[in-house]
Amino acid sequence: MTFPDLPDSQRAWAYRPASPLSGQPGGPLAGLTFSVKDLYGVAGWPLTASTRAPVPDPGESVLVRRLIELGASAVGKTHLHEIALGITGMNGFGGTTHPFDPEWVPGGSSSGAAVSVALGQVDFALGTDTGGSIRVPAAWCGVAGYKPTKDHPAWSTEGVLPLSWTCDHAGPLARDVRTLVRVHEALTGREVVRQEWVGLRVGLWLPDGWVDDTVLGAVQGFAAQLEGLGARLEDADFPEVLDAYSPIVLSEAAQVHAQALEQDDPGFTPFTLGLLRQGRKLTQAEVGAAHQRRAAYRAKLDALLTRHDVLLAPAVPTPPPLIGQEDVDLREGRTPLRRAVLRLTAPFSLLGAPTVALPSSSPFVGVQLVGRHGEDDRLLGLALSLEGQTARHDEGA
Amino acid sequence: MTFPDLPDSQRAWAYRPASPLSGQPGGPLAGLTFSVKDLYGVAGWPLTASTRAPVPDPGESVLVRRLIELGASAVGKTHLHEIALGITGMNGFGGTTHPFDPEWVPGGSSSGAAVSVALGQVDFALGTDTGGSIRVPAAWCGVAGYKPTKDHPAWSTEGVLPLSWTCDHAGPLARDVRTLVRVHEALTGREVVRQEWVGLRVGLWLPDGWVDDTVLGAVQGFAAQLEGLGARLEDADFPEVLDAYSPIVLSEAAQVHAQALEQDDPGFTPFTLGLLRQGRKLTQAEVGAAHQRRAAYRAKLDALLTRHDVLLAPAVPTPPPLIGQEDVDLREGRTPLRRAVLRLTAPFSLLGAPTVALPSSSPFVGVQLVGRHGEDDRLLGLALSLEGQTARHDEGA
Repeated sequence: MTFPDLPDSQRAWAYRPASPLSGQPGGPLAGLTFSVKDLYGVAGWPLTASTRAPVPDPGESVLVRRLIELGASAVGKTHLHEIALGITGMNGFGGTTHPFDPEWVPGGSSSGAAVSVALGQVDFALGTDTGGSIRVPAAWCGVAGYKPTKDHPAWSTEGVLPLSWTCDHAGPLARDVRTLVRVHEALTGREVVRQEWVGLRVGLWLPDGWVDDTVLGAVQGFAAQLEGLGARLEDADFPEVLDAYSPIVLSEAAQVHAQALEQDDPGFTPFTLGLLRQGRKLTQAEVGAAHQRRAAYRAKLDALLTRHDVLLAPAVPTPPPLIGQEDVDLREGRTPLRRAVLRLTAPFSLLGAPTVALPSSSPFVGVQLVGRHGEDDRLLGLALSLEGQTARHDEGA
Repeated sequence: MTFPDLPDSQRAWAYRPASPLSGQPGGPLAGLTFSVKDLYGVAGWPLTASTRAPVPDPGESVLVRRLIELGASAVGKTHLHEIALGITGMNGFGGTTHPFDPEWVPGGSSSGAAVSVALGQVDFALGTDTGGSIRVPAAWCGVAGYKPTKDHPAWSTEGVLPLSWTCDHAGPLARDVRTLVRVHEALTGREVVRQEWVGLRVGLWLPDGWVDDTVLGAVQGFAAQLEGLGARLEDADFPEVLDAYSPIVLSEAAQVHAQALEQDDPGFTPFTLGLLRQGRKLTQAEVGAAHQRRAAYRAKLDALLTRHDVLLAPAVPTPPPLIGQEDVDLREGRTPLRRAVLRLTAPFSLLGAPTVALPSSSPFVGVQLVGRHGEDDRLLGLALSLEGQTARHDEGA
């Protein structure tokens, strides 16, 4: 493994080949470079899922192959939170740090993906999102991320090592929405049209005890910006879904890693091993009850997205925490980091709704825009129209 | 339980209240009546899932409530293949028979739903489809059925007893597409526009050993009709998916019914009990491998629906079999009924693609039209344009 031209003090990169997999000339993505989260299978490149434990071979990623056909060049693989089961960027290779402060976490699990984009090393990054793994590092690294509708045909998870089949999504991160849109358009063959905010009913989901003052202000500021564009902001309510999310993800993760779990010490870090063993111990009835709760949450979200055209919510509860920090101070008090983060992002991957994470005016604090199931193009068109007039869609091609 | 005005020699009805749950006056579905498959929770109505075993309470169906708000009246509950785990209509209450021949099966699991529609007892029926449970009885009873994209917000499965969370869909059956479309439009608030077939690339998935001569001819005749409308027919290939479908559905069904399975004799018929016990015995690694295969099949279907705009396939391998018949004679030879049926329909529920089942020119033989993930309105618009000019969309309202 060599890193011929890039320093990597953040430990963002898992693998850098001597030369990239070059995109086909003349394609709509010609000239763009991208990094690949080390859960995607790429022929000839190693796959570790950022763990020392053995992992199943997922085969070759359909999405990576397609992006290369469309002209983009894959430059290497990025590190993730070990096996994608976590949100800080911790893994079996020393962990990835924040692009701009080595004491902060970058967010995860698509940690190296966000760093590679934030530092301008690539034009876009492929990540995955099971409970927030694209949106959280995007928010904490100050970039944009897009989690498509679950099972969107343009964003295939085939050839990607799963964490949880029923929650996993493949998606991109980039420094601007324009680039996310350009990749999405190339994959779908359809144009994303800028959408007006005038008259739109925006549900503001901002449980004010669940964030700190910085995030509260940032999201309120974002809401005011949307109102300035003519949107109608209305308060929206949604419950915490971790009683459904955690049993489902842990039981499915234990199935994915069943073979390694048969060993006494498979090589996972202790925290990851503990979670996987929790997953293995869940009974069928416990997982069944979690699926029942998921169905109820789905109905609630569907109802919410009937009353509102789009939801606005925080993507993170606080600015980036310190490495090793286990709790965060929220307006409601001290809260375990994992819960504080996941309860904001997990609903939309558990329930498969398309979601875009965008930077706010506060550094390293992002927001989420959530659209209706299948209305990805409209959501991206709304996000696109928030980018400055200088960042025109037709400029970069 | 009384059946005040309808004979029920087919045993299609599980529950008929003295008076219907009347739709709200003035709604877009005012004047329409519907039946509810006895997996949906309806306040004040019993729920049996057509089994003598105890089943979990799913709560109240969001979809039934919404249809009543939109003006439709619910007249009662229909029988199904026991707990929806099968395709003939067999259950703990004697089983449902075909609307027009008491020796034939009606198809299932939405057996009573199809019968209630075929006999003109209701305008539409709510069914569910996990592996073909709307499309198979629609085909064998000579009516139309629609299985939406998985997790379509308009077709909520909340308050419906699950069989398999990751494969279950809620959807309607009706005598014509026009009625399916009218219900869908009311639920989404969007108009379905008739679509032209001219120039469309139609993939014909007709593995010719998997059907009998009657079905082969019927599907070829349907294809010729589409060609007459200007579509371009091309052969399409797709594998059998039951090595993914069966472990996933059986393991999830065993989770749903985990509590009853703890009893020595919970009350399921022997065939159902055997399948559920198979599901309970599957290891995490076996289910994991099935999910991996599902991901590979999903990629194949996505690729197929990139090459083709829509797929045409048989909905059933033969006309309705006799009650008790265990095998069917296909062009490739004698084949177990369950496998012969499910390998045609399970792909599109396993993979969540929107699918419409339509009658063909051969009695009680239906075809499937399969659209791209999320493109339900377009698919329905294509199906709508196949209905005779006399059955105009604006006529019935």
